Amino acid sequence: MSTRAGIVVTGTEVLTGRVPDRNGPWLAEQLRLLGVDVGHVVVVGDRPQDLHEALVFLTGTGVSLVITSGGLGPTADDLTAQVVGDFQGRPSAVDPALEQRVAAVVDRLMARRGWRADPAAVAAGVRKQARVPEGATVLEPVGTAPGLVVPPAEGRSGPTVLVLPGPPSELQGMWPAAVSATPTRAALAGAAELRQETVRLWGTLEAQLAGTLRDHEHELAGLEITTCLREGELEIVTRFPPSAQAAYDRLVAVLAKAYRDTLFSTGPTLDEVVATGFADRGLTVATAESCTGGLLAARLTERPGSSAWVLGGVTAYANSAKEQLLDVPASVLERHGAVSPEVARALAEGARSRFGADIGVGITGIAGPGGGTPDKPVGTVHVCLAGPDGTEVRALRLPGARALVRERSVTIAMHLLRVALVGGPPA
Amino acid sequence: MSTRAGIVVTGTEVLTGRVPDRNGPWLAEQLRLLGVDVGHVVVVGDRPQDLHEALVFLTGTGVSLVITSGGLGPTADDLTAQVVGDFQGRPSAVDPALEQRVAAVVDRLMARRGWRADPAAVAAGVRKQARVPEGATVLEPVGTAPGLVVPPAEGRSGPTVLVLPGPPSELQGMWPAAVSATPTRAALAGAAELRQETVRLWGTLEAQLAGTLRDHEHELAGLEITTCLREGELEIVTRFPPSAQAAYDRLVAVLAKAYRDTLFSTGPTLDEVVATGFADRGLTVATAESCTGGLLAARLTERPGSSAWVLGGVTAYANSAKEQLLDVPASVLERHGAVSPEVARALAEGARSRFGADIGVGITGIAGPGGGTPDKPVGTVHVCLAGPDGTEVRALRLPGARALVRERSVTIAMHLLRVALVGGPPA
Repeated sequence: MSTRAGIVVTGTEVLTGRVPDRNGPWLAEQLRLLGVDVGHVVVVGDRPQDLHEALVFLTGTGVSLVITSGGLGPTADDLTAQVVGDFQGRPSAVDPALEQRVAAVVDRLMARRGWRADPAAVAAGVRKQARVPEGATVLEPVGTAPGLVVPPAEGRSGPTVLVLPGPPSELQGMWPAAVSATPTRAALAGAAELRQETVRLWGTLEAQLAGTLRDHEHELAGLEITTCLREGELEIVTRFPPSAQAAYDRLVAVLAKAYRDTLFSTGPTLDEVVATGFADRGLTVATAESCTGGLLAARLTERPGSSAWVLGGVTAYANSAKEQLLDVPASVLERHGAVSPEVARALAEGARSRFGADIGVGITGIAGPGGGTPDKPVGTVHVCLAGPDGTEVRALRLPGARALVRERSVTIAMHLLRVALVGGPPA
Repeated sequence: MSTRAGIVVTGTEVLTGRVPDRNGPWLAEQLRLLGVDVGHVVVVGDRPQDLHEALVFLTGTGVSLVITSGGLGPTADDLTAQVVGDFQGRPSAVDPALEQRVAAVVDRLMARRGWRADPAAVAAGVRKQARVPEGATVLEPVGTAPGLVVPPAEGRSGPTVLVLPGPPSELQGMWPAAVSATPTRAALAGAAELRQETVRLWGTLEAQLAGTLRDHEHELAGLEITTCLREGELEIVTRFPPSAQAAYDRLVAVLAKAYRDTLFSTGPTLDEVVATGFADRGLTVATAESCTGGLLAARLTERPGSSAWVLGGVTAYANSAKEQLLDVPASVLERHGAVSPEVARALAEGARSRFGADIGVGITGIAGPGGGTPDKPVGTVHVCLAGPDGTEVRALRLPGARALVRERSVTIAMHLLRVALVGGPPA
């Protein structure tokens, strides 16, 4: 029997989508690395009753650990510690030593930001944050909020609840202390290694893959295979115990044979493949973007160390910028229009020569919602890669709304870079 | 008593964070607009038992509607329709007319992408997608997957379940048909208007706000107030029935008085304030980014119509790019280093003059994890705005990892733009 855990993400701002949840998936992945299986992540608003119901639900699924994130701040809607304490049968009280430590943290924070605040209001907030359920283990604050490990009161059964702060940097900073705390270790005793591997295809239909998996079902026992189609990339993620490694190797062999025209990775993401390609080849890149407005440059510079291969880029929204910063000839703009293969090529070549880069990438298109014509509807995008081996242009008609058209254009450009750098299936 | 609904987001790729969930928050917001209250969003992987448990849980919370997203694809791990049908006591069978319609959609999709696939595998996938629980209402596919409205079988009680596809564009495209379907309308009968308004502060401590809210508690009856601190912005979101409008007006008056130095919006987001500012003032902008690598340009061009005020930008990672594309003097780079107020100013002025923009923004800094020194540690960032009224430079020491430093630098630049365009509290 595997060790299971459940996750509760609290916060009306998460429930309503004003803040995307980054904690649920991060915690699920950390637990998987520890060999702990997660069946449910429950997102609840800042209502005590809703949080209580989520705790009851997860307890009923037989988990040995519940992790909560959020609701540890100083305001009246931050209720997690209190609700969890009550749920576990452990009444809360202010811990005076903790109160002093939190007060010191808040003082330093305010001094650094140069903020002023009413001392009585701040003290009330600190006192709230220092309330601890009786018998709980305190995890020292990374921001201002302490975390808690709260086992059920003596004589009660049910999961231990690990209470962590909402800001992802605080939650992640507290994680090492949280998992090594004695009551957490006790709750997770018996967890065993669970491996996870990923195969990535570019341009294969999900139904086709489903057929292949059905045909080989009898060879793939012990594997939990899930597939996900995202922007044309088909991601095949497999989880398995070490005892099923041979079955996984067999799966990879089957996929490599059936999908040699689309399989571009047996592990690293597209962005990792491209970054490694630049580093290994010692090549540099520069971008010239119109409709994607800097998104490709931002994506290429997301990774630490990218300054070794990214020289820079130009976002050229205005035609005058295309001419003056990237040497796109006015005559080409006039004859073919800004959204054309010719301009994409001139952009790529302009970026390459202006930055002195080995590879230049040009993108021009109509992201919408306005600007489309019968000839060049919204979603018309031209992507060009100019490198030492010549140029490569892709003419696209992308479906979807503005954000999606921008994202997909950047993904196609990344695949063109992948092919130019490391070969493999076509972009 | 308010009408309540629950949401189940399915997919191991969402549970494990490979794909961020965009459906849960979107659905919660749509339901709020209809006056329907959402207490829980449950994320489950592709395991039938976990989905079943989530349906049981939400039913127990007394909701009249459950919405599921995902799990309608052609592969073996797409099980939502089957599990929901069983849960509602309605066995599933293939709908032959629907099977033909789905097959036609898949044929068109493959032709457009130029993909080939084994016809038998495709037919099996189509047949799976055309399985419908007895008595369910079919919602026509937007992508390839049909949606379903599945009330409990006759003689049973419990919520109606609305089954929607996972890809956000398909789910959103199907929404109008989904809410106007007769069984959905029946489940949501009695929903009443619920208003939501937002006040935004820049530079106020959450504990200070908590004190203000406590002091005025007796005037604020009927308001559900939640606060969220995000990258220095304190967001105060209030939900209330129309009958509490006067209390909400009172809240805004209290906040406007107590926080006149930090309240920058009683509605629109920072990005909306900046976009409106550009449009109203008829001014244009260009960017020059080093450590943020194009993120500011990408953020400014996110909005439709932004080409009216964004002329473009340069991502200048290499010093040579700063000199050649933005006229940053080599002597300034040498004397002060690339990360310095002087270079930030030269970048802003270079962007302004090269693009012929009214306002230029320059950002230079050390996003990390490498590149820091004792004098200029990771998180050192200089942001400069150069406009018709002169220049404004901010020297920052930002905490946090690479992605956070980049994001926060861009947010500070947006606030500098806000102040330059529309005034209000300082950036």
